[in-house]
Amino acid sequence: MDQGARVESLQQLQQVFGDRLVRDPDLIAPYAIDTSRAVLRGAPLALVFAESTADVSAALAWAHEHRVPVSVRGAGTGLTGGAMAYDGGLVLSLERMNRIVGIDAENRLAVVQPGVITAELDTACRERGLFFPPDPASARMCTVGGNIATNAGGLRCVAHGVTTDSVAALEVVLADGRVLRAGALTRKNVVGYDLKSLFIGSEGTLGVITEATVRLKPVPPGTPRTFRASFDTLEDAGRAVTAIVGGTAQPEVLELMDALSVEIIESFYPSGLTVPRGAMLVGQTAGLDAAEKAEGITAVCAAHGATDTGVSESDALLEARRLSNPALNARGLKISCDVGVPVAALAEVFRGIAEISERHGRRVSTVAHAGDGNLHSTVEAPDTPEGIAAADRVIDDITRLAISLGGTISGEHGIGSLKRHELPWQLDEAAIDVQRAIKAALDPRGILTPDRAI
Amino acid sequence: MDQGARVESLQQLQQVFGDRLVRDPDLIAPYAIDTSRAVLRGAPLALVFAESTADVSAALAWAHEHRVPVSVRGAGTGLTGGAMAYDGGLVLSLERMNRIVGIDAENRLAVVQPGVITAELDTACRERGLFFPPDPASARMCTVGGNIATNAGGLRCVAHGVTTDSVAALEVVLADGRVLRAGALTRKNVVGYDLKSLFIGSEGTLGVITEATVRLKPVPPGTPRTFRASFDTLEDAGRAVTAIVGGTAQPEVLELMDALSVEIIESFYPSGLTVPRGAMLVGQTAGLDAAEKAEGITAVCAAHGATDTGVSESDALLEARRLSNPALNARGLKISCDVGVPVAALAEVFRGIAEISERHGRRVSTVAHAGDGNLHSTVEAPDTPEGIAAADRVIDDITRLAISLGGTISGEHGIGSLKRHELPWQLDEAAIDVQRAIKAALDPRGILTPDRAI
Repeated sequence: MDQGARVESLQQLQQVFGDRLVRDPDLIAPYAIDTSRAVLRGAPLALVFAESTADVSAALAWAHEHRVPVSVRGAGTGLTGGAMAYDGGLVLSLERMNRIVGIDAENRLAVVQPGVITAELDTACRERGLFFPPDPASARMCTVGGNIATNAGGLRCVAHGVTTDSVAALEVVLADGRVLRAGALTRKNVVGYDLKSLFIGSEGTLGVITEATVRLKPVPPGTPRTFRASFDTLEDAGRAVTAIVGGTAQPEVLELMDALSVEIIESFYPSGLTVPRGAMLVGQTAGLDAAEKAEGITAVCAAHGATDTGVSESDALLEARRLSNPALNARGLKISCDVGVPVAALAEVFRGIAEISERHGRRVSTVAHAGDGNLHSTVEAPDTPEGIAAADRVIDDITRLAISLGGTISGEHGIGSLKRHELPWQLDEAAIDVQRAIKAALDPRGILTPDRAI
Repeated sequence: MDQGARVESLQQLQQVFGDRLVRDPDLIAPYAIDTSRAVLRGAPLALVFAESTADVSAALAWAHEHRVPVSVRGAGTGLTGGAMAYDGGLVLSLERMNRIVGIDAENRLAVVQPGVITAELDTACRERGLFFPPDPASARMCTVGGNIATNAGGLRCVAHGVTTDSVAALEVVLADGRVLRAGALTRKNVVGYDLKSLFIGSEGTLGVITEATVRLKPVPPGTPRTFRASFDTLEDAGRAVTAIVGGTAQPEVLELMDALSVEIIESFYPSGLTVPRGAMLVGQTAGLDAAEKAEGITAVCAAHGATDTGVSESDALLEARRLSNPALNARGLKISCDVGVPVAALAEVFRGIAEISERHGRRVSTVAHAGDGNLHSTVEAPDTPEGIAAADRVIDDITRLAISLGGTISGEHGIGSLKRHELPWQLDEAAIDVQRAIKAALDPRGILTPDRAI
């Protein structure tokens, strides 16, 4: 179908969306990109703002009929180019589907539309003594729908798992516009295939999530404590993390920032952080014994070489940690990874990253959701084609290192459009074939976020 | 392909399996059925005992080539006819793939073959201070592979979730014999579709699990406590469960037996259980504050009408609870359900079951994994076609009631061959279509456990 015919067919869509269908390129532009370094190619045909499941269904049915590629857009905080618009494609924004439909405190469930901001859901739940466990660093900007589409992780994963662990049921619109429900309100449910988990983390390639029923947890009693520990080397910090995770006092959050990261964050948003020689661990404990657990954890840190530790009721340090991505963006640093390793391999992966950094002659800063072994290393390089290529080689080496240690190429950001070349590093041929077969079965015309994620 | 040609083609398989290929119907018989009331139709062609992934791959490649239906067999403890052999089919036994490959205490992971007995894995882990959370009542007989194939639940679900929550990675042989790995050793992993979760609970219809990497948890310190509380009515017990689950002191296990169940269990294995007027809750707490939590829970029970409560260091009561299925089987009672409801709906579902029982004039006994809302109700009826039909009508009504309360038709047993007629009661047309499309994509010749689960 040529562009002219596509434009003509838009009249159909206009009848459904009225002035919620946008064709002005300037108005579309901010919805056509995400937060990654991916570059928009060509020009999208139109942007529609869905306000209901019926809207999403109409948009996809139209795209299916006319074979128009669709990019799906929450808040655009993605880091792998998953929501980038397509040339001649439709941009489907879910930001107006931002209603918390209900909170069922007795069953600890909430029903939400996909465009609800993650932190706003959490805040609403806390008014009922509950909280929403998933906690990506971008929680104040990103949406629950985006979290589900990428199976987002975040800071509280060490204690509460990833997004999929908190999703009970989904409403999904399929590529051809049909509506499907998957999952159940009950903890146990073995009724046909686990379609819910299949859609979670599928990055918009199998369906569009239009409603989610999520699981909540009770807010632990008492005042949380934030702890910190500085180390002379990253490897010491890595060994301390392994010991903490294997110990009796378990944190809610356990993050690591290396010296360069602390420097970058502190210069972006000065909060009095002391730059460590090697790395700093920051974390949080909760419950009536939060103080006791925090002291226990800092004692483990001291036994593993921490030079300076502290426990506080203020969570300013964690707030600083959450700023690492904006701080890196402000410096134009976007060549990074999202690898994961088993926690017992942390010291080894840090040693390897230092070697890689030295071998390539490039400075690398690393922040990590250390408690679950998920690392974000960013390479300093000039913003030139040569600089980017050099930085990419560093990231490739770090990624292969993580895999060699039993790890993953992506812990929480997903594959999007930027990491597809890495898929065969982790997945065998049969797994890649099966994923393609599933994609073909669910989206035979290949209109939904094509050529991404798998 | 006619039976003669199938038999001839068996020579190929014989070359791989030698005397591990069995054709004697008497030797095949015990491997051709499960623990449900499903009836074997026709005669299987052969039984093979796989000892390796390569064996499974060879068996499936053969079946794929010759279009022979395959039933997959762990310990045969299934309750929905999922492992029943097919007429002219191949029975693939995994009972000899029963090795614990390794336990990685530092990363809290174990690698196991599918035929490992669930309780034996748990015991091996406990020697390292860890435990395997999934805990079906049949843990001493069933296999980890079977647990994964049905996403089994069990007693500890209220605290530790279902099997899928404890599976990190799988090795799976596809219908055509190809081998695939899914999942990762890390807690976070967003790399293509979540094939691991797709295979979990797929009841042998999408692939055969040949190795699993499972997640372990540290054994809580201290001595667990078992608590009990008797109630005059099931509804009171249901309300108490809702209050306990919503309270601060959380149990590891929270089970319910109604009066008739206690009577049936006690007559099967006398252990001095006192039959309550309505129902009995039995559960367990763990951790250094286990005693305190147990007292807190029994206090909640008392506040909700418990007539008699107790706390003990002996877990004899839980052992009794685990015998409910053998006790029912010993009476020839096999017409039962596996429904689930949100925990806040427990009192209502119990009231409804009493009404249904009365309306049909049939006694119904109910045991429940009450903490997660999963109920097993069994109908007393004569073992005649009329009796069975009458009992089925009772189960149908209970199942529809559970769905009307936001519940599920199967919490942990799966659909197998016995419950497929119930699928449209819970799933919409699009979900059923998508499941069939996935089945067709992964097993185009329909040889793997055909006509079951979906």
